[in-house]
Amino acid sequence: MYDELLFVNKEEKAKQIIGKIWGKNPLFTCVIANTETGKIKGISAAGENPDITDYTPPADVELLELGRCKCIDGVPVTPDGIPTPAIITRASLRLADIPFLPINAGLNVLPQIPFVDVGGTSGKDIRKRYAVKNPEKTIEKAKVLGKNLAYLCDFLVAGESIAGGTTTALGVLVGLGYDAFDKVSSSMPGNPHTLKKKIVEEALKKLGDNNVFNVIQEMGDPMIPVHAGLCIGAAEKVPVLMAGGTQMTAVLSVIKEIEKRVMNNLVIATTSWIINDKTSNIIELVNEIYPVPIITTKLSFANSKYEGLRAYEKGVVREGVGAGGAAITAYIKSKARINNENLFKEIERIYKGLLIQQRKQHYAPLK
Amino acid sequence: MYDELLFVNKEEKAKQIIGKIWGKNPLFTCVIANTETGKIKGISAAGENPDITDYTPPADVELLELGRCKCIDGVPVTPDGIPTPAIITRASLRLADIPFLPINAGLNVLPQIPFVDVGGTSGKDIRKRYAVKNPEKTIEKAKVLGKNLAYLCDFLVAGESIAGGTTTALGVLVGLGYDAFDKVSSSMPGNPHTLKKKIVEEALKKLGDNNVFNVIQEMGDPMIPVHAGLCIGAAEKVPVLMAGGTQMTAVLSVIKEIEKRVMNNLVIATTSWIINDKTSNIIELVNEIYPVPIITTKLSFANSKYEGLRAYEKGVVREGVGAGGAAITAYIKSKARINNENLFKEIERIYKGLLIQQRKQHYAPLK
Repeated sequence: MYDELLFVNKEEKAKQIIGKIWGKNPLFTCVIANTETGKIKGISAAGENPDITDYTPPADVELLELGRCKCIDGVPVTPDGIPTPAIITRASLRLADIPFLPINAGLNVLPQIPFVDVGGTSGKDIRKRYAVKNPEKTIEKAKVLGKNLAYLCDFLVAGESIAGGTTTALGVLVGLGYDAFDKVSSSMPGNPHTLKKKIVEEALKKLGDNNVFNVIQEMGDPMIPVHAGLCIGAAEKVPVLMAGGTQMTAVLSVIKEIEKRVMNNLVIATTSWIINDKTSNIIELVNEIYPVPIITTKLSFANSKYEGLRAYEKGVVREGVGAGGAAITAYIKSKARINNENLFKEIERIYKGLLIQQRKQHYAPLK
Repeated sequence: MYDELLFVNKEEKAKQIIGKIWGKNPLFTCVIANTETGKIKGISAAGENPDITDYTPPADVELLELGRCKCIDGVPVTPDGIPTPAIITRASLRLADIPFLPINAGLNVLPQIPFVDVGGTSGKDIRKRYAVKNPEKTIEKAKVLGKNLAYLCDFLVAGESIAGGTTTALGVLVGLGYDAFDKVSSSMPGNPHTLKKKIVEEALKKLGDNNVFNVIQEMGDPMIPVHAGLCIGAAEKVPVLMAGGTQMTAVLSVIKEIEKRVMNNLVIATTSWIINDKTSNIIELVNEIYPVPIITTKLSFANSKYEGLRAYEKGVVREGVGAGGAAITAYIKSKARINNENLFKEIERIYKGLLIQQRKQHYAPLK
């Protein structure tokens, strides 16, 4: 049973929740935001032009909804031309006919598709004061949203897209007292732990009170409070798949401070690239906070004919835009009809289309 | 069967659709926007301060979601202190546990709750050019939204809140060639037909090409294209209750131009105050466009102990914020467990609470 999944934490509990939602109707959401922290040189896969990170989240959700981006030409890629994991999410949503709602938690550039707004504003560099505005208010609004969305589905899936998000995730974890240095992941092949640590330690100096709202405000990004509020509001009623890598542990740490009792309805759903990442440790992080289940898809790009996809196996990108969780959701909703074999074919088909379309790009050309 | 409803147009078709959604799960949406047309003296129940109309739609949806308004003290009322029909909608959603999503089609003041954004901007006075920006683009986005929302419910209910909306509805109907003068309703006891006609005739002079997008742009308001797109996107998959009065006929006329084949999945759901209105004629309007069913709730305020509610029976307010459709939806979802008797009790309970809370108001005091 569940052959295409790996159970890497709390297997029994994970299987119990999957049993409940097997063949049922999901709603896929993606919380998108910007933080100036992601524009610090060397932090994110932003390349020469850090302002490009403003376009990545809206372009990602446009790709999910329409199969192409509207706010940019082409699709988001790393400086080396490795494509956004949104292509995995797009393939999953499309094959399994999964409804999708993007949630704006604080963007500089709005997507040209319908989205939910919770009144957030984009984040500042965490080395300066007030990096995230009014996190408490935003969490309350996101809870209201989560509660409403929980009526509309049998389980909620919540991904994220924010450049620089692992650094702010580290900030929140450290701010809340967790031993998280060297444990968060990165979208880059060499995880810049030293730089991340330096930034977070500088932010920490101005933290003061470490109550959860102050920690988000001084150490976090706008995605984290919205994702946390969304999960809290929804998980009171339905199971929630937190679709992402180590950033989800920061969300988890916030939820623990605010509404611990919903944590039994949470599962982290991600890629095996995150679990296999030697530069981070999601399992240790999760168990430091609260032992929620972690499941991964067995999806592999090792046999892809495209260099841009094979790069994922070398530890580039790894996760984002809820890719791992979306693949798992397609598998669950379709009762295994959509497996890694046909999902992989669809991803290669989408990727081939993007290579053909490839036009004037804001980013590096696709590989 | 269906004792609490009145079938005032296409009864057989109406009963067929209600049979399909009886006891099923709805999603209630409310499309909110502003138009400068609503600020023309004498057009809307805005009173001495027309800029108050900017606050009415966000305050209405805050009341639906939270039971109180955040962007204003108190609740929206007419200049005479008659309360917003949102109290009917609030009572219905609450009793029947109906999920709710507001949709911003173009507001000057944003609600302080989560809402969906489709990228619209607030409307200008239709006597000037370009009253509604990019209606074609907005319709496309709203279709995408409707398509996604249709996955999340067994039937979609779509209300509206926009001050001045019956004048712009008249504009669109006349622009598309319908004989609509003297047939649209009003939130005021004396329906200012002469003034509405004068405004619409002035707008008509600059219309030029009467293709549907140009008509919306020159004669309409931002609610209309979003509501139309939403209905088109959703009605391809699930039945849609168009929750409103004569404004829904303008939406219907737009849908007919764009996607006629979805019209068999549409029902207009409203109050009996609209049907009993001697100053307007929704049945004639609908049958001029396309014979969709019209159903109304039998809800009456004749026996209310509150003057502010009894006023509804005298033809003040009549409809708005999807009130009639929400009452009908509560009845359908609950399989008649929520009838007009217990709904009326809940409305009086909510109204009593508002009277007690009544503080410094932007509007006239409640009656």
